[in-house]
Amino acid sequence: MQLKIRLLILFIGWFGIVSAQEIRSPNGELKLAFGLDASGTPTYQLSYKNQTVIQSSRLGFDLKNDTLDLIQGFRVVDSEESSHDETWQPVWGEESLIRDHHQELLVHLEHLGSKRKMDIRFRLFDSGLGFRYEFPVQENMGHFVITEELTHFAMSGDHTAFWIPGDYDTQEYDYIESKLSEIRGLMETAITPNASQTPFSETGVQTALMMKSESGLYINIHEAALIDYPAMHLELDDERMVFVSHLTPDSQGDKGYLVTPAQSPWRSVIVSDDAREILASRITYNLNEPSKIEDTSWIKPMKYVGVWWEMITGQSTWSYTDELKAVKLGVTDFSKVKPNGKHGATTENVKKYIDFAAEHGFDGVLVEGWNIGWEDWFGNSKDYVFDFLTPYPDFDLEGIATYAKEKGVQMIMHHETSSSVRNYERHLDDAYQLMKKYGYPAVKSGYVGDIIPRGEYHYSQWLVNHYQYAIEKAAEYQIMVNAHEAVRPTGVARTWPNLIANESARGTEYQAFGGSNANHVTILPFTRQIGGPMDYTPGIFEMDVFNGSHVNSTLANQLALYVTMYSPLQMAADYPENYMRFPDAFQFIKDVALDWENSLYLEAEPGYYLTIARKAKGTGEWFVGNVNGFEGRTGEVKFDFLDEGKTYLAEIYADQMDAHYKSNPQAFEIRKVSVDSKSVLKQYSAPGGGYAIRIREVSKEELKGVKKLK
Amino acid sequence: MQLKIRLLILFIGWFGIVSAQEIRSPNGELKLAFGLDASGTPTYQLSYKNQTVIQSSRLGFDLKNDTLDLIQGFRVVDSEESSHDETWQPVWGEESLIRDHHQELLVHLEHLGSKRKMDIRFRLFDSGLGFRYEFPVQENMGHFVITEELTHFAMSGDHTAFWIPGDYDTQEYDYIESKLSEIRGLMETAITPNASQTPFSETGVQTALMMKSESGLYINIHEAALIDYPAMHLELDDERMVFVSHLTPDSQGDKGYLVTPAQSPWRSVIVSDDAREILASRITYNLNEPSKIEDTSWIKPMKYVGVWWEMITGQSTWSYTDELKAVKLGVTDFSKVKPNGKHGATTENVKKYIDFAAEHGFDGVLVEGWNIGWEDWFGNSKDYVFDFLTPYPDFDLEGIATYAKEKGVQMIMHHETSSSVRNYERHLDDAYQLMKKYGYPAVKSGYVGDIIPRGEYHYSQWLVNHYQYAIEKAAEYQIMVNAHEAVRPTGVARTWPNLIANESARGTEYQAFGGSNANHVTILPFTRQIGGPMDYTPGIFEMDVFNGSHVNSTLANQLALYVTMYSPLQMAADYPENYMRFPDAFQFIKDVALDWENSLYLEAEPGYYLTIARKAKGTGEWFVGNVNGFEGRTGEVKFDFLDEGKTYLAEIYADQMDAHYKSNPQAFEIRKVSVDSKSVLKQYSAPGGGYAIRIREVSKEELKGVKKLK
Repeated sequence: MQLKIRLLILFIGWFGIVSAQEIRSPNGELKLAFGLDASGTPTYQLSYKNQTVIQSSRLGFDLKNDTLDLIQGFRVVDSEESSHDETWQPVWGEESLIRDHHQELLVHLEHLGSKRKMDIRFRLFDSGLGFRYEFPVQENMGHFVITEELTHFAMSGDHTAFWIPGDYDTQEYDYIESKLSEIRGLMETAITPNASQTPFSETGVQTALMMKSESGLYINIHEAALIDYPAMHLELDDERMVFVSHLTPDSQGDKGYLVTPAQSPWRSVIVSDDAREILASRITYNLNEPSKIEDTSWIKPMKYVGVWWEMITGQSTWSYTDELKAVKLGVTDFSKVKPNGKHGATTENVKKYIDFAAEHGFDGVLVEGWNIGWEDWFGNSKDYVFDFLTPYPDFDLEGIATYAKEKGVQMIMHHETSSSVRNYERHLDDAYQLMKKYGYPAVKSGYVGDIIPRGEYHYSQWLVNHYQYAIEKAAEYQIMVNAHEAVRPTGVARTWPNLIANESARGTEYQAFGGSNANHVTILPFTRQIGGPMDYTPGIFEMDVFNGSHVNSTLANQLALYVTMYSPLQMAADYPENYMRFPDAFQFIKDVALDWENSLYLEAEPGYYLTIARKAKGTGEWFVGNVNGFEGRTGEVKFDFLDEGKTYLAEIYADQMDAHYKSNPQAFEIRKVSVDSKSVLKQYSAPGGGYAIRIREVSKEELKGVKKLK
Repeated sequence: MQLKIRLLILFIGWFGIVSAQEIRSPNGELKLAFGLDASGTPTYQLSYKNQTVIQSSRLGFDLKNDTLDLIQGFRVVDSEESSHDETWQPVWGEESLIRDHHQELLVHLEHLGSKRKMDIRFRLFDSGLGFRYEFPVQENMGHFVITEELTHFAMSGDHTAFWIPGDYDTQEYDYIESKLSEIRGLMETAITPNASQTPFSETGVQTALMMKSESGLYINIHEAALIDYPAMHLELDDERMVFVSHLTPDSQGDKGYLVTPAQSPWRSVIVSDDAREILASRITYNLNEPSKIEDTSWIKPMKYVGVWWEMITGQSTWSYTDELKAVKLGVTDFSKVKPNGKHGATTENVKKYIDFAAEHGFDGVLVEGWNIGWEDWFGNSKDYVFDFLTPYPDFDLEGIATYAKEKGVQMIMHHETSSSVRNYERHLDDAYQLMKKYGYPAVKSGYVGDIIPRGEYHYSQWLVNHYQYAIEKAAEYQIMVNAHEAVRPTGVARTWPNLIANESARGTEYQAFGGSNANHVTILPFTRQIGGPMDYTPGIFEMDVFNGSHVNSTLANQLALYVTMYSPLQMAADYPENYMRFPDAFQFIKDVALDWENSLYLEAEPGYYLTIARKAKGTGEWFVGNVNGFEGRTGEVKFDFLDEGKTYLAEIYADQMDAHYKSNPQAFEIRKVSVDSKSVLKQYSAPGGGYAIRIREVSKEELKGVKKLK
């Protein structure tokens, strides 16, 4: 029955194709076919090593107040095919050089009824496909409003997917592993509570969506270069196993307002029969424009600590007082209210973190709750909620800046917007200027709660435009941005490398809000991180936190995250005291690099395990990280990436055999061994565990007494 | 039947009052009674010379997500009565000194169910009542959302009203004169088309609402100090003749988001048995806060000409080219498109206006259509529609600035926002800085078309907040603002005197869009101008304009508007060539003052006639203006305001006996007579006509041969 339906679609969808064109990826393994069906509807089809990845799927747009739309009745005016092969250098990244090698097919379409022009540009890489719609300047279409984008992704079967609920306002869900056909039944339980959330369908899911077919194909659907356009979700027709693009609407239910020349973001399909190749793909960045920042010398990866986890876990507060039912900026006089005695961002406490950062070689200190307004910032739909300028009376802005500078530490600014984006934009210039005045090189911004203007969603065109505005304006001030709760990244950091990280997914904070799945971090690199680095804020050593929540991770797993969760911005999130309880484990966090010459994906199975080796820029040291899912597992890793003939010291931070993310998370062991390019590591990782390794050349003296890896 | 209902309301509404308090105006003629009815609902009642003006009317709020609301169940905790008498000096205005003399009653209420505090502050002047709600800082209410304000204004009869349809997006309607009971039947025809409009009810009308009772009482309802709150409309219960406040909603249907300490705008009721006293009342300004601008030396009234009427009438265009279906700022290259040959804002044409201004003593030149984006600015809901920075290739920003400076003329900037307010706010700083760089002291801003963020309305809290933001930011740059299509003014110019004018009503432009009622200008001072000056852009000499529309006004009426339509910003709107056709009449526009020591309202009947005498600041010259309604009329004016014993030269610009706004509008005559304080002028004004007089002391020689006024 299932098969019959599929064949029927194939018949209608492909055998009815009137005209068709085909391109192949550089290595010939991927094949993209474009065509028009009998009704003049554009369609495409993708195969990999002769297996169907995307069955014939339609392309087009439903437009507002438009009887003609851009759905059918097209003709192919012309098409162009071209080859591209270039290598470019990212400002920071998993590798120091990225190759962009693809075959391009540009199809010029004309809509017969309206004479409107729409181009579709396909780029076929060895690791997958990117395509987008382009609307050139033309006589018959200047402005148009998208009711819905009609891009289909017809799957070839009932794949296994790692998915989170489609939602206009949050990405902070735990992933569900299920068959596509099971999504509908699991949706209700998948929608866990959030500060702002708008799920929209029983079968709607978010990108990047990671799938695996029965035949072992790994398929990943996402988008690239999301600029001034709503974010795309995927709505599943679970009878036919077809994903249909579902754009985030504005407050009026419209999807996007476009002005020619215009283009959609790229829709990407990464595919391989080896999960590691999904991680190695650079499609997302390659589909983005080169850097628009000329002088990027001020953009520098940072390792940081911060006044944050103590608030997240409930030990201290962002707010200064418990006395105020409401704060009115410019009216409320904080010098006259009684402090609650639990405020985290006090000068004294901040200096403690600065001292700690200086002592242990961290680049920066983040401080949240430094500015007035935290007493009523959440849940009140408060327009003028923060000014991003005025510190609480117990936070000495100038004194702290001076102290940090003396200690050689940089302060990281915090701008929680409470999703009141007009208010944020009004204050952006002054806020960035304040940062420059006091020497803050980077800002962490937050968008917690429902959006103001009310009725807008976190991922609508309005907000996507705003996040981009904040990034570009920050670039004017040479400020790096780390935006939390902003739209999931789509590789825009290539073009604006000052977008140094995002959270934009379920981060470590949820470990203090009841916990995340123990295999969460084995999935994120296949989903959220397809778009760019994540400020996951790892490094929790004490799993039973102040408020009673439990962190579902072993300590060794936490160390591994510094390698597996790529980010040029890496936090050591736990309290300094907790690091001092485990100085030996803490050493890894201090040692681990932030920026990489090369990255190798040694083992990978989404939801189950992941092992990555990375070579640090500059030092040439290697770091290996392994994270593991719910079940204990012994992996095997070859060190053949090491230079032949050399001997290295490897420091291995691993789970003990009885470690477990729930019951025994701190059971780790550290061993030093010597390794060379012929070494093979068999290493056990506990449930929710993992391991981290530092590998480097040392003097012969240092290797004395160190045993060879067996 | 009508009477019975009214008595019933009176019975329920007032005789059920449990506790009551009363104050009287300084002269004792007005009486305000406040009370709680049996259900604990606050009520008020207003009388004038023992006639009921407002019958017992309820006060309160319906709150969102709140079962207790602020409707009934109040108790009076305390009340305070006080007297105030002070005189203050406006920066500009109809008088050089304004007296604020009132009796105040402040009632502290507590809501029994919720223990929430709400104060109501009444101020009773000799000319009327102001009252507002205040929400002090308190334990039980920090943030609240208004579903509706429940302020009632119960009329004592089926008054005659001069009304325009209640509308969330436009004020640009012709006024209808009708009985209250006729509003419902006339609403459909009253709603004439507009670029953006959202009427909301069959009996909804706007403030300032002017009424006249059968017994001859003039009653005006408006609001004062509209700050961060939605604009109020009045919805009529036309069975009971009760007006109920109807606030402008946001895109979600909510009315206002408030944070304590908070207050509503003042609700004002001006009342007199003499229509002239309505115009003489200074309640609106007195209910606003004193100036927040310390150094106001840069705020100066301006008389100006501009490149504007030629676009309004269709003779030239705002846009530069007809080639573009859409403009994409930053992408579209205007140096490569073909000009349409009709662009108004060319360097050459602007210089012509500068020359004209310099020659005839005008302070400024406004230029619209100078900046790129006019090709697709309207009707496309275009977010990034203007940058307010980039001139068209044929507008030499720097050259024009230099030329104007040489000629001693100041340029007036134009910022049409196309109602895309986020875009405007993003560019405000740069745009104001550009103005400072090129020496523009004032900006005319426009809000044509539907609001972006989409779903918001021109008069919602979001937009009211925006207009205020633009004013306050302009003050930082010492820039004067003349905002068209912004919310109707409510006296905020007292607090921010750089808000030098608004249009915010049906201005002269409508005379080129098919015409306005010939009596329109006899009503505006009683309605729109209760809130502040109007940039009505008068001075049209050629009534049959380029596009075939006819200006429903005589030439003499146009001259009178410089006196009757008070504004510190006055345009001479017609083409220079038309002024050169009538240099004698044009002389009045050149002579008339802009700023006044004193204003006297000599004759007044809304909809019919209006005669105002004003004494110029500095020179001591007097100017008299009379505007007339549909029917010809001979008025009588005593010159007893002149200094006794002195003889003055009066230049009278009046309609000829056969003048008519439709058929013979340019039939005017100028006569010079001598007058003194005993003179009485009997002067005919044609249908849609009027007259204008300049009165001044001159040398005896100049008076030689001048006849005495008979």
